Amino acid sequence: MIACGGAELINVEDFGIHEGISEVIFTTISPDGIPNAAPMGLHRKGGRLFARIYNSKTLENIMSKPVAAANIVDDPVLFVQSALSDAEPERFEYVEDFPVLKDAMGWILFECKCKKGETISVVELSPVKGKITTRKLKPVNRGFNAVIEASIYATRYVVFREQKYLEHIEYYNSIVKKCGGAREKKAMELLYELVGLKND
Amino acid sequence: MIACGGAELINVEDFGIHEGISEVIFTTISPDGIPNAAPMGLHRKGGRLFARIYNSKTLENIMSKPVAAANIVDDPVLFVQSALSDAEPERFEYVEDFPVLKDAMGWILFECKCKKGETISVVELSPVKGKITTRKLKPVNRGFNAVIEASIYATRYVVFREQKYLEHIEYYNSIVKKCGGAREKKAMELLYELVGLKND
Repeated sequence: MIACGGAELINVEDFGIHEGISEVIFTTISPDGIPNAAPMGLHRKGGRLFARIYNSKTLENIMSKPVAAANIVDDPVLFVQSALSDAEPERFEYVEDFPVLKDAMGWILFECKCKKGETISVVELSPVKGKITTRKLKPVNRGFNAVIEASIYATRYVVFREQKYLEHIEYYNSIVKKCGGAREKKAMELLYELVGLKND
Repeated sequence: MIACGGAELINVEDFGIHEGISEVIFTTISPDGIPNAAPMGLHRKGGRLFARIYNSKTLENIMSKPVAAANIVDDPVLFVQSALSDAEPERFEYVEDFPVLKDAMGWILFECKCKKGETISVVELSPVKGKITTRKLKPVNRGFNAVIEASIYATRYVVFREQKYLEHIEYYNSIVKKCGGAREKKAMELLYELVGLKND
């Protein structure tokens, strides 16, 4: 149980947030009201919840309005799209004027305290409110997991254009082809398109 | 919706079984009543459900009694244990004298039709009954996913003892250390112990 600013208590365990790093999608809002979505690692260590955020639109938004929502998502296409591009405006809905993802199975809204660093900042997160929309039975799919790994390597590949990242992407693509369903395959097609590669 | 032998209909979608391969744990029973648990890929392709099973205790059991339960599990320790060793007797419970896993979030019982091959057999699966115990909100944890990948490489490593499998295990162990929680770390400790390696 983690205490928060308001009268309510949010038990992040109910949202499946355990020790370690949960891969979620952060939504934030810019001073001129433009919503942003980006995959983020939500760290839980002891009673602490935090994120380590590189200089990015997400960090800029948090610096101007210190609020972020961690959206718990199981759509591989949404992970790829928000990692390498922008989520379309129709992907968002608004809770008291703050953007969350329509397709999230749940979200937690956090107050943020930012320790600004040169290239990476540590943002301490205090839960303010949360909502669970969907609980599912979800067996392991290696194809889904491979999309997540490929997305991480793709974000490095677009910056550094190094062969080693490409090899990782291709390895994970072979797992998606073997184990994934339609949604995972569509996510990998989008990934290849967004990084400017051919998916053979 | 997939029709089955009995009067009921089981919608495998409700169990999160979509196109592609779901990683589940198969439970089977031997002629002398000893339960067995082993990780297995449950393939869904069009209306077909099947598994490709190497010569193993699972295959022997299915040949003698053509029934298997696909247990949907999210405990990384159970994945490692059933991949590389035996699940303890207290891990099982019995449904009409057939073993399923106590900690399963759900299970589907299948009638099996086996096309025996030299080293690998294709087992066609017809759902007979199923049960859902738990639906959870479960964010992506790369540590959990890494345990699954490491288990697969570990089953190859114990057979072939090749360096390349070891390198994969070590790579995934580094992800578990970074992103996993207590249960994922315990699973990796068990994995290293069961394959006879030191986990530094």
